[in-house]
Amino acid sequence: MIGVDEALQQVLLHTTVLGDEQVSLADCVGRHLAHDVLSDMDSPPHDKSMVDGYAVQATDLREDRAELKILEEVTAGAVPTHEVLPGSTTRIMTGAPIPPGADAVVMIERGVMDPARPNHVQLQDHVVRGQHIMPQATVMRTGETVLTAGTRIRPCEVGLLAEVGAADVPVTRVPQVAILSTGNELVPPDVKPGPGMIRNSNGPMLHALATQAAAVPLPLGVAADTPDALEHAVQQGLAADILLLSGGVSAGVLDLVPATLTKLGVQQVFHKVQLKPVKPLWFGVTTETPSPTLVFGLPGNPVSGLVCFELFVRPALQKLQGAPSPQLKTSTAQLLASQQVKGGRETYLPGNMRIQDDQPRVTPVPWQGSADQRAFSHANCLIRFAPRDTRYEQGELVPVVPLFQDP
Amino acid sequence: MIGVDEALQQVLLHTTVLGDEQVSLADCVGRHLAHDVLSDMDSPPHDKSMVDGYAVQATDLREDRAELKILEEVTAGAVPTHEVLPGSTTRIMTGAPIPPGADAVVMIERGVMDPARPNHVQLQDHVVRGQHIMPQATVMRTGETVLTAGTRIRPCEVGLLAEVGAADVPVTRVPQVAILSTGNELVPPDVKPGPGMIRNSNGPMLHALATQAAAVPLPLGVAADTPDALEHAVQQGLAADILLLSGGVSAGVLDLVPATLTKLGVQQVFHKVQLKPVKPLWFGVTTETPSPTLVFGLPGNPVSGLVCFELFVRPALQKLQGAPSPQLKTSTAQLLASQQVKGGRETYLPGNMRIQDDQPRVTPVPWQGSADQRAFSHANCLIRFAPRDTRYEQGELVPVVPLFQDP
Repeated sequence: MIGVDEALQQVLLHTTVLGDEQVSLADCVGRHLAHDVLSDMDSPPHDKSMVDGYAVQATDLREDRAELKILEEVTAGAVPTHEVLPGSTTRIMTGAPIPPGADAVVMIERGVMDPARPNHVQLQDHVVRGQHIMPQATVMRTGETVLTAGTRIRPCEVGLLAEVGAADVPVTRVPQVAILSTGNELVPPDVKPGPGMIRNSNGPMLHALATQAAAVPLPLGVAADTPDALEHAVQQGLAADILLLSGGVSAGVLDLVPATLTKLGVQQVFHKVQLKPVKPLWFGVTTETPSPTLVFGLPGNPVSGLVCFELFVRPALQKLQGAPSPQLKTSTAQLLASQQVKGGRETYLPGNMRIQDDQPRVTPVPWQGSADQRAFSHANCLIRFAPRDTRYEQGELVPVVPLFQDP
Repeated sequence: MIGVDEALQQVLLHTTVLGDEQVSLADCVGRHLAHDVLSDMDSPPHDKSMVDGYAVQATDLREDRAELKILEEVTAGAVPTHEVLPGSTTRIMTGAPIPPGADAVVMIERGVMDPARPNHVQLQDHVVRGQHIMPQATVMRTGETVLTAGTRIRPCEVGLLAEVGAADVPVTRVPQVAILSTGNELVPPDVKPGPGMIRNSNGPMLHALATQAAAVPLPLGVAADTPDALEHAVQQGLAADILLLSGGVSAGVLDLVPATLTKLGVQQVFHKVQLKPVKPLWFGVTTETPSPTLVFGLPGNPVSGLVCFELFVRPALQKLQGAPSPQLKTSTAQLLASQQVKGGRETYLPGNMRIQDDQPRVTPVPWQGSADQRAFSHANCLIRFAPRDTRYEQGELVPVVPLFQDP
């Protein structure tokens, strides 16, 4: 049995970045850039006004006041047609190009129009040369790299891509995640389970995890515990980038999954991880299908499935999508209640983390074991405990893995 | 001019929770529950085995060992048909019901089969009554509330909803966000701007913000600075729950937006907020359209639009969706570099926050003013500075607003 860190290293070792495609600006949020993006222009493209106001020669307001002749009005989208000479001014909008001759802008609120003197304005301001003007290329220059490959596109990156003309955005392809639940005991969520049966909550949960991680879920439903049923469904799943199976990997009578996977050419990388509340985590890869598929055989209970997804599948999805340094995102927090941990395997328990008195603190969520997925509705992180018999005291710093993190 | 806190209070005062609808488990992640959800069954539904193993009478292993006759094998989905009597055992799978008569389970690894004694197993274990058994209803009881109205549905809630049979999930309707950019100076992102023109980056950015906040964006494109064009587009936008306009709200010549909105029956709530890098934020509501519309007239530059969205529109979207306590989510962090702030208005500057030495710390991101949206690609939060001339020293605690936060 290998440890969590080594298992994750193995998973990432077998994971390669997907190919790329172009999508529109409306569809790119949450995706990862496949290439660097350069600016195709200076920003601003010209010396521009930062305010609505009057473009002037600063020397005209030596005395902090002047009456100037208005040459023209440059509205948004228009360009100045006159040079600003001594004694004159051009009224311009925020963002408009500074007219030739002008070297400062006076805010519109500082100007008073006198009905008796049409086309003139009385300005009152202590003017400094260059005021309210942003020089051309202050923010970026033509040809400069503004976003690098691998960057996850958030709304502010969308605005920047639009500004530099990247209307077709080169992004890494979205991973497809096939989801297959196994087990004769499973009924769909809309059916009342009979004796010995339970509802399939793993399938919908893994579907939601894939959706939330910006992947495309391919639900394959439930396969019965027979070699034929399983083989047929797994074969479909191997068309995806990732195949998540739940159930059928522990040492019980009907654990057919590892045998079926091996038969279909999936090479086992590991079968067990020193990890609570998960032990039988099967991981393998295939190279025979058109593109490689990462296959995770998750335990049958949803809590173990959730923990495996967060520890192994999420970092793999990040790497597939080209995230710069895919890894398990951990931080530390102060434990707000003592916790007894039984050793042997690294243990991940549900916790609720928040900033309190300017420090991250975490409270363990009361939890009935791996069948208790209800506890996780009060959790926002996993608390990691080392693989030994230990009592962790209140106030100790412990590592935490936030749940459902963006890459 | 009102302050940020009062402005947000005004926005939320005019915001009411949307109606509800039912969606499938596959579509509910990220949505908010419209009603409480009760469990329709006990969990577990019966005393169940926590491991693959042998159901026994604990007294049979008084000596920590015993050879027992195997009555039957209960695989997943099957139910026991025999009572476990002294001297006998039933082999069961994880999750299977405990057979009548049994009061403990011995893990499968503790059993040895002797080929000479078919249908018998030699068990070796120090058995405690009840071991590896989870009693019926440990996790939840029939009729118990397991999730409350307003809860945001994450993947772990999806699993729980499936478990309790909530296959049709009652959720608050998704808000529709109409997005209208205004300005004669705007060209689409795929066009190279001519003199005086700039690309419309606000539209795509607001589209992405709406998408990322789990709303449905309704892009209305760019309206020219003419009363007719604006009126036509605004009228379309008033069919949505929120209308975001960008540009056209400051005191310049072509700022037609407030006049047009008033003409179309949108009642102004406020026009300016004491806020940098935003001042002319217009907010109003209409009650004449089929359902109320919140109308935000955002400044024309994308950075101001982003700040307004985070401070006002995101909390409004949360309230529309029924989030339990919609508000601006702030925390505090230690400032890693000094920062001079000019007073008059509350100021929000881009920052990069991270946990370092177990404490949240934030570095101001160098920033060229409101035309510099590039700086935000290095930011993950806004740092809030009070409305007065102050130099903030390295090491001071400052309030921060994380960007793009889930509700």
